[in-house]
Amino acid sequence: MATKIILDCDPGHDDAIALLLAHGSPEIDLVAVTTVMGNQTLDKVTRNALSVARVAGITGVPFAAGCARPLVREIETAPSIHGESGLDGPVLPEPTLELDPRHAVDLIIDTIMGNEPGTITLIPTGALTNIALAVRKEPRIVDRVKEIVLMGGGYNIGNWSATAEFNMVIDPEAAHIVFNETWPLTMVGIDLTHQALATPDVVASIAALGTGPARFVGELLDFFGETYKDQQGFDYPPVHDPCAVAFVIDRSVMTVRRAPLDVELTGTLTLGMTVADFRSPAPVDCTTQVAIDLDHAKFWALIVDALERIGDPE
Amino acid sequence: MATKIILDCDPGHDDAIALLLAHGSPEIDLVAVTTVMGNQTLDKVTRNALSVARVAGITGVPFAAGCARPLVREIETAPSIHGESGLDGPVLPEPTLELDPRHAVDLIIDTIMGNEPGTITLIPTGALTNIALAVRKEPRIVDRVKEIVLMGGGYNIGNWSATAEFNMVIDPEAAHIVFNETWPLTMVGIDLTHQALATPDVVASIAALGTGPARFVGELLDFFGETYKDQQGFDYPPVHDPCAVAFVIDRSVMTVRRAPLDVELTGTLTLGMTVADFRSPAPVDCTTQVAIDLDHAKFWALIVDALERIGDPE
Amino acid sequence: MATKIILDCDPGHDDAIALLLAHGSPEIDLVAVTTVMGNQTLDKVTRNALSVARVAGITGVPFAAGCARPLVREIETAPSIHGESGLDGPVLPEPTLELDPRHAVDLIIDTIMGNEPGTITLIPTGALTNIALAVRKEPRIVDRVKEIVLMGGGYNIGNWSATAEFNMVIDPEAAHIVFNETWPLTMVGIDLTHQALATPDVVASIAALGTGPARFVGELLDFFGETYKDQQGFDYPPVHDPCAVAFVIDRSVMTVRRAPLDVELTGTLTLGMTVADFRSPAPVDCTTQVAIDLDHAKFWALIVDALERIGDPE
Amino acid sequence: MATKIILDCDPGHDDAIALLLAHGSPEIDLVAVTTVMGNQTLDKVTRNALSVARVAGITGVPFAAGCARPLVREIETAPSIHGESGLDGPVLPEPTLELDPRHAVDLIIDTIMGNEPGTITLIPTGALTNIALAVRKEPRIVDRVKEIVLMGGGYNIGNWSATAEFNMVIDPEAAHIVFNETWPLTMVGIDLTHQALATPDVVASIAALGTGPARFVGELLDFFGETYKDQQGFDYPPVHDPCAVAFVIDRSVMTVRRAPLDVELTGTLTLGMTVADFRSPAPVDCTTQVAIDLDHAKFWALIVDALERIGDPE
Repeated sequence: MATKIILDCDPGHDDAIALLLAHGSPEIDLVAVTTVMGNQTLDKVTRNALSVARVAGITGVPFAAGCARPLVREIETAPSIHGESGLDGPVLPEPTLELDPRHAVDLIIDTIMGNEPGTITLIPTGALTNIALAVRKEPRIVDRVKEIVLMGGGYNIGNWSATAEFNMVIDPEAAHIVFNETWPLTMVGIDLTHQALATPDVVASIAALGTGPARFVGELLDFFGETYKDQQGFDYPPVHDPCAVAFVIDRSVMTVRRAPLDVELTGTLTLGMTVADFRSPAPVDCTTQVAIDLDHAKFWALIVDALERIGDPE
Repeated sequence: MATKIILDCDPGHDDAIALLLAHGSPEIDLVAVTTVMGNQTLDKVTRNALSVARVAGITGVPFAAGCARPLVREIETAPSIHGESGLDGPVLPEPTLELDPRHAVDLIIDTIMGNEPGTITLIPTGALTNIALAVRKEPRIVDRVKEIVLMGGGYNIGNWSATAEFNMVIDPEAAHIVFNETWPLTMVGIDLTHQALATPDVVASIAALGTGPARFVGELLDFFGETYKDQQGFDYPPVHDPCAVAFVIDRSVMTVRRAPLDVELTGTLTLGMTVADFRSPAPVDCTTQVAIDLDHAKFWALIVDALERIGDPE
Repeated sequence: MATKIILDCDPGHDDAIALLLAHGSPEIDLVAVTTVMGNQTLDKVTRNALSVARVAGITGVPFAAGCARPLVREIETAPSIHGESGLDGPVLPEPTLELDPRHAVDLIIDTIMGNEPGTITLIPTGALTNIALAVRKEPRIVDRVKEIVLMGGGYNIGNWSATAEFNMVIDPEAAHIVFNETWPLTMVGIDLTHQALATPDVVASIAALGTGPARFVGELLDFFGETYKDQQGFDYPPVHDPCAVAFVIDRSVMTVRRAPLDVELTGTLTLGMTVADFRSPAPVDCTTQVAIDLDHAKFWALIVDALERIGDPE
Repeated sequence: MATKIILDCDPGHDDAIALLLAHGSPEIDLVAVTTVMGNQTLDKVTRNALSVARVAGITGVPFAAGCARPLVREIETAPSIHGESGLDGPVLPEPTLELDPRHAVDLIIDTIMGNEPGTITLIPTGALTNIALAVRKEPRIVDRVKEIVLMGGGYNIGNWSATAEFNMVIDPEAAHIVFNETWPLTMVGIDLTHQALATPDVVASIAALGTGPARFVGELLDFFGETYKDQQGFDYPPVHDPCAVAFVIDRSVMTVRRAPLDVELTGTLTLGMTVADFRSPAPVDCTTQVAIDLDHAKFWALIVDALERIGDPE
């Protein structure tokens, strides 16, 4: 049976691909999509999500807008990576879906509380602001979700600072809240996602599909490849967010290691750092784990397969 | 015309008196009461609020429960001051009001957005968790409220640490959020409320009323007086929360001073300290002020008057 | 018998007057003068100290230069208050004294260890860098000094930030070290020194002396008065540093209150704040106290008297 | 020509081996040994250093005691690793050397300033308290030393916390001072030293030497192996401190990577963490580097060779 997921995202090039993967995979039942500021402002990422929904042919799934700024800090976006629109590169179609009138926080709570316990998986691929607000407003969701598989953080490396990853550092308090609840949580951090490079063979396989969504992904990767080369010196762009979705589709796409995790809130050099304690075997009640090694071929095969199933929706 | 207020509280002895003052004053139109953990757990303070509503004869006002724990920190309550029930001392009647089904955060947002702009005054007398969540969920409330008059903090002194007051230090991140929005905000801190002592003459005036609610207040002051003597060496208990309500009733009950305010989040000795910058005249766009000197007689006259008007409701 | 003191200073207009007071007072035996960066760079304040020595006619007292930068932080000076030379205003005479070849830290240690226990009073009027290094290099000085009476900090107010005073905030780690040792320590902070205003009658009394050193002080006060008016809005300049010396001369020149003291090292708004815990009576083993109220007339009388005794040394 | 080094240490089992390596290596000219609290109190580690000097047959080298506590924090020692004496295991001979009367800080300064510029290498293998005090007392040593090669920190892992290594975390302010000066600095952290395991073949090679010092090292490794197994789950003990000495003897014993380094002072989870910024190629003016990979065979060959040269000194 397909896994019911809520995708909480800030599209964002890799978020867009995550959305396509979630929609195209037969292992995933996409029950809600929520947006949060991050790669761009809330208005922009929300419109982007709806545009991608049209590209992918997603219908009948509620999309809701969430938080327009982090809990405590000022908002910080990433135009140097995702452009002014948050999804620069392809021409974005006018959305046809209408937004759900609810706030993302309420859609998340309603979806979790309205489904059977242990059936909803949360996949956040942006800042954790919505999830943090949801759990403070309705603490019972902690015991009710199946698990959280999030893209963000890193156990050894940072990208927005020497020690911190963008999604964590733009709302460290939200991350701290989410990492300190007792739900099963898998951190798919940049140690893992920097292995998910869109290499030329990958780009060629996607191009070979010849569909509209595949062309769309190709254009996303072109733009993303350029900014990652310019800004961070990557030969090929790391496609972060779909890694979290891929792990929900197929556990064998990556290895993981259980370890206590926490988020630094007061460090001068380490604000927003996700601290994994690897010194000893994880305690028996440890509910957190980090992704370590990616099966690159299997990962990209999942994406190609999802695009193939999506075909040409319009 | 009476000022419409939302009282966001954690009864708590002085919260209970604040509720009686708000209900009894002809200058106040109590449109909603919301609760937040603090002096005791959410369940206890919510039940206490409903019990006090019965004592005061409050009907037709929605009461809603809010956050059960602070945003980022672990919950900390104050049984040493307020007892195990949060309102030790008097026998509490069974509540007759039913709770509003909405979360406090939504009742606050709905009330502010559903009334004319500039008509709703927020009076928080506990941790600022509900208010912080409300403003992050619905940022438009900032421009929509009339003002915030809160009890908490202090510009020179602390009670829960050398530098911080209880309501602030138990959820400093929430306080930081609320103090950094642009709404007009008056901080009625312990510099002010330590002047609001329930001296023997005050206690006698209240006792002389001879009503049930007055006896109830007398019993509250007895208990509160004992714990404040034992715990903090006060001769007479400082009755904090009604001071904020009193300021909304009558501006002349205290002097205030405009100054930039902020809340310390990373200090080792100063976590949760409310920092007022008195070095220069406040900038013209400064929207925050602190209460300085209380007119003790006028303050207690307001309370006696409110109790007189309440009479014996049952 | 006169009290033996080491004056550790960064002249600095008020440091210069402190030096004159210490030299001119019959109650003080000035056994060493050490310098530390602060109001200006080490080179400048050291030269200033030697120039003031010549103005005052000080001979036979070792002067030694100390630390050129704070322990952990980058150096920050105060030209907006003290000018480019650190002692702008009067024409400074060429120094005639030669510097002691020792480092200030060693002169402090040697002086304390080479005199009878309990005989040397330390009067720091700048950043506490030299004292901190001395006590880490030779921990036995803690039990060996008579007491420390320092100018710096404040229990309610700041000047260099909303919460912190210049001497503390430019080297908070040094201040933390000094405040956490067990020696008797009196903090003469800006709560006190803002009472030590050089009012027109004071300036007139000094001018009336008609001596070179008195004219020198007059010129210092002219310049200092201007910068304090421009920078901090004072009608008359607060003459900080001599207050600490005055307390050593005559205990009755100010009231003090015993309280635990500490220095904030991690605060965002409160870095370098001196935290006094006034919530309860000070514990019996508390060795720290803060200055509260100044006897303005008695204070300035001490200064006039010292200048009178100094006369015209050259 | 042999490299002149000052070994600043807190013996400590691995410090003792570092001292033997420095003494026995023909590439090293040991010009001074200074001690600092850390693995045990200053008294104990100083006595241990002198005992090891006797075992090694060191004469004519000044040994000086340094700081008895960290700059800002309270002292914390490591008896769980090094035992009550700081060098549990072997029977320690009575020292025959006398301590130099100078403080370690002054011996360090005198040695650096008294030798030709660029000739003295500092090898700290404990907390950086002495070095920090030395550079604040005499800033000219920064341009005067050849380089600093220190054992401490880690770019990915911690041992005393999830993120910090013992030498750094017990005096993070001192580490911050040393890492932020412009001298060439190589950090030999636990990422590297956890490769320097005393495997059975290594232990056998040392035992085969049959000398007193070799037996002494064998007894050190026995004890150290036990505590590392019990406390941190190591099969064989990592012998940290000699790695720094080995790098001075032979650059090819490890690979290094240039990167900006700094030390976290305010983190809750990351206090004392050594932060390496590996995101981009190091700037051209970067003077810091970290050790990455150890040549295990070459490292232990240096130690066996040094022990062989030492022979049986008494």
